[in-house]
This record gives sequence, C-alpha cells and structure tokens, in this order.
Amino acid sequence: MRPEITRELLDQIRQVIEAQDESSAVKILEDLHPADIAEICMQLDSKEAHFLYLLLNDEVASDVLAELEEPERNNLLSSLPPEVIASKFIINMDSDDAADVLSEMNDERKEEILLHLKDIDQAGDIVDLMSYDEDTAGGLMAKELIKVNENWKVQKSLREIRKQAKEVDEVYFVYVVDDDNVLKGILSLKKLLLTKLSSRIKNLMEKDVISVRTDIHTDEISSLMQKYDLVVLPVVDSLGRLMGRITIDDVLDVITEEAEKDYQLASGIMEDVEITDNAWVLTRARLPWLMIALIGGMVVNLIISNFENEIKIHPQMAFFMPLIAAMAGNMGIQSSAIVVQGIASNTMGFEGILRKLGKEFLVGIMNGMVLSSVLLAFSIITSHTLSLTITVSLSLLIVIVFAAVFGTFIPLILHRFRIDPALATGPFITTMNDIMGLVVYFSMGRILFDVF
Amino acid sequence: MRPEITRELLDQIRQVIEAQDESSAVKILEDLHPADIAEICMQLDSKEAHFLYLLLNDEVASDVLAELEEPERNNLLSSLPPEVIASKFIINMDSDDAADVLSEMNDERKEEILLHLKDIDQAGDIVDLMSYDEDTAGGLMAKELIKVNENWKVQKSLREIRKQAKEVDEVYFVYVVDDDNVLKGILSLKKLLLTKLSSRIKNLMEKDVISVRTDIHTDEISSLMQKYDLVVLPVVDSLGRLMGRITIDDVLDVITEEAEKDYQLASGIMEDVEITDNAWVLTRARLPWLMIALIGGMVVNLIISNFENEIKIHPQMAFFMPLIAAMAGNMGIQSSAIVVQGIASNTMGFEGILRKLGKEFLVGIMNGMVLSSVLLAFSIITSHTLSLTITVSLSLLIVIVFAAVFGTFIPLILHRFRIDPALATGPFITTMNDIMGLVVYFSMGRILFDVF
Repeated sequence: MRPEITRELLDQIRQVIEAQDESSAVKILEDLHPADIAEICMQLDSKEAHFLYLLLNDEVASDVLAELEEPERNNLLSSLPPEVIASKFIINMDSDDAADVLSEMNDERKEEILLHLKDIDQAGDIVDLMSYDEDTAGGLMAKELIKVNENWKVQKSLREIRKQAKEVDEVYFVYVVDDDNVLKGILSLKKLLLTKLSSRIKNLMEKDVISVRTDIHTDEISSLMQKYDLVVLPVVDSLGRLMGRITIDDVLDVITEEAEKDYQLASGIMEDVEITDNAWVLTRARLPWLMIALIGGMVVNLIISNFENEIKIHPQMAFFMPLIAAMAGNMGIQSSAIVVQGIASNTMGFEGILRKLGKEFLVGIMNGMVLSSVLLAFSIITSHTLSLTITVSLSLLIVIVFAAVFGTFIPLILHRFRIDPALATGPFITTMNDIMGLVVYFSMGRILFDVF
Repeated sequence: MRPEITRELLDQIRQVIEAQDESSAVKILEDLHPADIAEICMQLDSKEAHFLYLLLNDEVASDVLAELEEPERNNLLSSLPPEVIASKFIINMDSDDAADVLSEMNDERKEEILLHLKDIDQAGDIVDLMSYDEDTAGGLMAKELIKVNENWKVQKSLREIRKQAKEVDEVYFVYVVDDDNVLKGILSLKKLLLTKLSSRIKNLMEKDVISVRTDIHTDEISSLMQKYDLVVLPVVDSLGRLMGRITIDDVLDVITEEAEKDYQLASGIMEDVEITDNAWVLTRARLPWLMIALIGGMVVNLIISNFENEIKIHPQMAFFMPLIAAMAGNMGIQSSAIVVQGIASNTMGFEGILRKLGKEFLVGIMNGMVLSSVLLAFSIITSHTLSLTITVSLSLLIVIVFAAVFGTFIPLILHRFRIDPALATGPFITTMNDIMGLVVYFSMGRILFDVF
C-alpha cells in the first residue's frame, strides 16, 4: 500500500517548500509514485510545483510530466529551455506520451525540442505519431514493442527479446512479423517460457491476432478491447505492417473521458469541468446551456401568452402546467439516455429505426396509461371541473407518448448524421419537450372547454 | 481482424440452425471468438442458442459461458445436469468466473456441482471466493497466479513458473512471497528474461508493490488501477498474505457499469436497461421515476393553487412558470452532476463542504446575474408590467442561486451518509427545484404586486 495523499501530507509539503527545505522534500517525494507527485503538483500553485519538480530525478520527472494535465504541464515546461526538455524528459518518455506532450506546443518550440533529441530513431517515432489524428488508433498507439521474425527459433528470439526489452517498459506479448514487417501472429511470454529452445516461432505463435488499422476511431478500439478482454492491441497500416501497440491504460482513459463527456452533456455542462475548478471556469462551462434553456423558456412564454383567455377563465389550468412540462421533459430524457447509452456501449442490436420508434411508442402508451390514470384520480379528488380533468389526463398521455418517440428519434437521427447523440440529451430535449407539452395541453384545453 | 457480427451473419446462423445443419454451424463458430459467440447467443432465442452451444468444444463453451449475461446463462445451464456443468465447463474456467457462475445458483445446485468437481483445490478456491462480498477486492479477484519464494534463485523460479503457468491464462507478473505466503515483491517476466540464472529473487524483485486488502471496495480498486496504470493488482489478507489477483478487464467492466448506472440515475431510469430490451422491461424500469415526478407535479399543483388569485388578476404570471421551473431544474442538475462526477472520479480535492457551497453560491450569482438581465430585457420588450418584470427577473436570480447551492448540497450530504449521490440527480432534484422555484416566484409576486 502507498501513502494516500491527505490534506496533512499536502500541508506538510507546503511547509517544506516554504522553508526551501530540499532534503526533507526529497525524502517525502522518494516514497511517492509519479502519479501521486503529479496529483500533488496540480494542487500546488505553479511556483511551489516548480520547486518540487526540480528536485526529481530525470526518470521520475518524465513520468510525472506524462501524468500532469495539460495546463499544469505547459506551465511547468514554459520556463524550461528546449534542450533541457529534450535531454532530461522527452528522452525518458514512451513515444506516445512524448508525442502527446509535444503536440501541445507551437510548431517552433516542437521543432527545437526534436532537434535536441540525440536519438534520431526516437525523434522519428515521435514525428510519425504526431501525424495521426488523436482520435484514431495511430494517435493512441506507442511505437515501443517487441517483435520477432516468424522464421526465427525460440533461442534466437529470446536473445532478440532481451535486446529489445530494454526499451519497453512493460512486456505482455511478443509480436511475430514476416520479413516485410507484416503482422503474422502473437506470442505470450508465458508460451516462450514453456517451450523448447529449438522450436520455430511460426509453429508456436497464435495466428488469430486481433489488430486494428491506424485510422480506426478510438470508440471502436475501446469497445474491441473491452469485448475481447485485451490488455494490449497491435496497430497495423493498410498493408498489414506492424506500426505500434495500444495499451489498456490509455484506452481506459478514453473510456472514462467519453463517459464523463456524455454525463456532462446530459447534465447540461459544456466544457470538461471538475468540482475543484474555480467559480469563473464553472460559470463559463454552465452558462451556454442555461442560456439555451432560458431562450427556450422565453419561447414557451410567448406561446402560452396566446392562451391568456383560457388562463383567465380557468386559472386552474395554470396549476398543471409545471406537471405537464416536467413529465414531458423526464420522459424525453429517459428515452434519449437509453439511445445514447446504446450507441456508447455499442449494444444497439439489429432493429431498424422504425422498430425502435414503434417500441418506444408502446413504452410511452404503457407508462402514459398508468400515469394518466393516477392523475385522473388526483384531479377528481381535488375536485377540478370535468373538462379540466379530461384535458389534463388526456394531455399527459399524449405528451408522454410524444416525448418518448421524440426523445428516441432525435439522438438516432443525430447519430445517423454523425453528430454526437449526447447533444440531444439534457437541456435541449427538455426545452423542446416543454414547448411541445404545453402546446398540446393548451390546445387540448381550448378544444375541450368548447365541447363541455 | 475478426468477422464483425452483422445482421447477415445472424440470419445465416438462424438458417443453419433451422436446417439443423451441424457441420455448417461448426464451421461458422470456428472463426468466432467466444465473446462473439456469446453475443450471438444473446440475440437468439433460447432453443436456437442451445443448439449452437452444444456444438462447442468444452474450452470454448466455458469461455462463452463466462461471457454470457446472467439470464441467458441461467437459461442455458438450467437444462444441464450438475455433473456436465462441473466436468465440462466449470473445470475449464478461471476461479473468479466459476465463482460468479455458481453464485447465481441456489445452494442445493451449487453444492451438487461443487461435489462433481474432480479437482478438490479448484472447488476449495471457488468456495473461498464465493465467501467474499461481490463489491470487494475478494469478490473480484481470481485465485490463479504465479508466485515464487523470495529466497529462490532465478533458475529454480523459472522451473516453478513453468509448472504454475500451465494453469494461468495470462501471465504478466510473478509475485514474490516469503515462507508464510506474505507478499514481499513483484517481478516482471521481462526482468526474469533479462537476468542471470544465479541471481536471487530477493535482489531482483520490485519491493514497492501496490496491493489491496480483500475487503477494499471495488470503487477504490478501479481508481487505484486507473491512477497507477496497473494491469493487474495483487490482493492480500489482513496479515499481508497473498490471496489472489485482480485483472484490468474485470475492473474495466466495473468502471463501465458504474458510469452507466450514474448516467441512468441522472436520466431517471431505475434498472439496468438496454435499448434492445423489450417494451415491458423498459416500461418497468422507467415508471418508478416517472411516478415520483408525477407526485412532485401534484405537489406543485397543490402549492400553486394557493396562488389562484394572483393568476386570476395577473394571468401573465402563469406565462413565466415553465421558465422559472425549467431554469431551477437545469441549474440544480448541473450542480449535482459536477458533485456526482467529482465523487465518481475521486477528484473532490480538499475543500470542505462549506467552501464548496460558497463557491457554488458565487457560480449561482454570476450565472443568475447574466440570465436575469437577459430576462429583464425580454420582459421589458414584450411589454409586461413593471411589477411582473421585477418579479420575474428577481425570482430567476434567487431561484438560480438557491438551485445551485441546493444541487451541490444534496449529493454531498448523501455521500457523507454513504448513500449513492447519483440518486440526487435526475427527476428528484428537478422536482424539488420545481417546487422551490415556483414558491419563490409566487411569493415574490404576491409581495411585489402589493408594493407596486
């Protein structure tokens, strides 16, 4: 077990920094994992973080750098000359992390740092990786991997693996390629440990390798790795040549970010915010959606003002407005959430859009019948007029069915047009359903009050 | 790359099953990964799935069984005698999967199957695992792992590893224990490949192992593995003895499920539903929240009916009701979503509750000022009376600030009392804020209409 980052530890570190007590600081840092040091640095102000950072040895400092969030990382790096960044940090980083760090910089600084890299192969790898879109397998992969030729024997392979393994942090599998570097198979270290030294790799390897092409989208990669319980996934180019490998920890970050983004969209938050952000950042992230909702509310206001007469004559009609609007909103959010989640988790099944809408219509009818009956009873008990009672219960049924179908339709359509369906959840669908619900309610009222 | 499961493939399989064409079925199944076969079985009806299942060899059948969802698995197993389940499937499964499968059965059947297991060690492992709470490290871990004694040399260790590795599917690390089975360190296979055969394990191993105790909650495990980029995590008992190991694929499932649950709660869905479920299941999962919202709407109705006079005299007041209610709801959901996400991703920082509420108050004020000003302008343009204009804009400001603070407070308090804070999101907070918003609005109206 490692020491947890507590408030006490943080206070202690702050004191040590204030006293400029380097030896105590080094002693504290020694016990900490790079991920913990990064977490601490993000809690400190940039001057404090800088003090700590300069006390780390190159390897730990590189790991910490990879763990930092973008603003803190840029803050730290901006004060350092390119040759230091290259020769102390980048040189110790995996190619994918190095590419991520460099791609945040402007072109001039990027080039300066690359020129200071002594290992020309590493510089080449980084430049290669930066050329891929960050949402694709190419953008996610690292170049470091261990490969053997299918024609080698185990003995030669082990010798080669020993050589290559020095550059690769964690080795789970060995990839098997032919003379043209085309991926042919995969071999677990376990298998290598269990076989005779004279066996030929070709006869040992697992031929049925799951791999992805460099241009595959990260969404597909995460569902692939999750489905097949993969820890690492090889990446090939269009000719099948082995280009790199994606590890599960990077994909885990993608999955978490994606889930957080969907959740934030459903809750009406625009940017990626955290509870520790300051009030100004939080306000900026939330105002746009609230403004959309406000404009929706104004539209609702203008529409209802057409029904001023109804409200004057039957002020009780107004009592049910929030109920109708809220039920439309809730039903719509449920429906769109189910679609969004189905798309996100790749479990949409094979029903067509029409069948899905038909099913949702049925769900709307069943829920609507139950809820309308309850509302009917309530309205009778609270002794409203017959016309109002009928208006309210009938409107609720219609509104619920409509909201269910609408809430399913919008994200499906957005998805079809390659727009993020999560946009359909949250304030947008609520506002649309508010408007729809109240228009149905008042129109129904106008008709029914004439009849009865 | 593997064949994707398309509608065509599914249709083809259905045809083959209908024709009882075993050899064609076997040919199709040969190319498929167990995870794909499981996915196909879940799309078929139980008779079709049964036909396919009996064509699989024992090893593949066991893997498919582990991948199936609970209802489909029980469906399949219920028709099979205990000795077949034990000798064909359970015997080929990892201890954690076997324990999961068995724990879904009733005690009698469980025991019968365990008695038919020939390997008494395996039966013991399964019984051990079933004794842990499924939300803890003990419930998530598998018993299969590779361990060596710290006093051994590399040569002896490699011999032992070869022996043990036969039972373990994937080997990423070797654990190092002392004579009492207390976890002392960890060794990567890479390290073993790179060193002299005469070195002693003690001097090679990484001593600083991250491990968890059997009773640690899965939430903590997932954030630990994600933070430290771990692929596998050793589990120890209270004496530090090595009990098992947790692999990232199991944790990934936990993370995904947790994120889906939070998302569903925020959208007002009670059970774990999928878009492919039938209308009845979907209705049942959604009705409870809708019923709560309906009851909330009735309460709102009763409260507003106290303001019948205001509405009669100023029917325009009713026009703004949906706007006020919607803004309160949206603001509250945003606030609680940020808290829920902070708790879920373990990034709550070290601010106390009061400071968090203070910040949220500030966010409410800033958002409220902007939104109220816009509404003020709108109200003036649409030429409402001065008293209504002031009532509406002032109410909006108050309601937004209140909803912000309330939306932050409720999930924080739930979390403090160890209740899932995600319960606070969705229809619950919307309804509460509806009520609060409209009471503020009408009370304000009552006062201001008297003044002006």
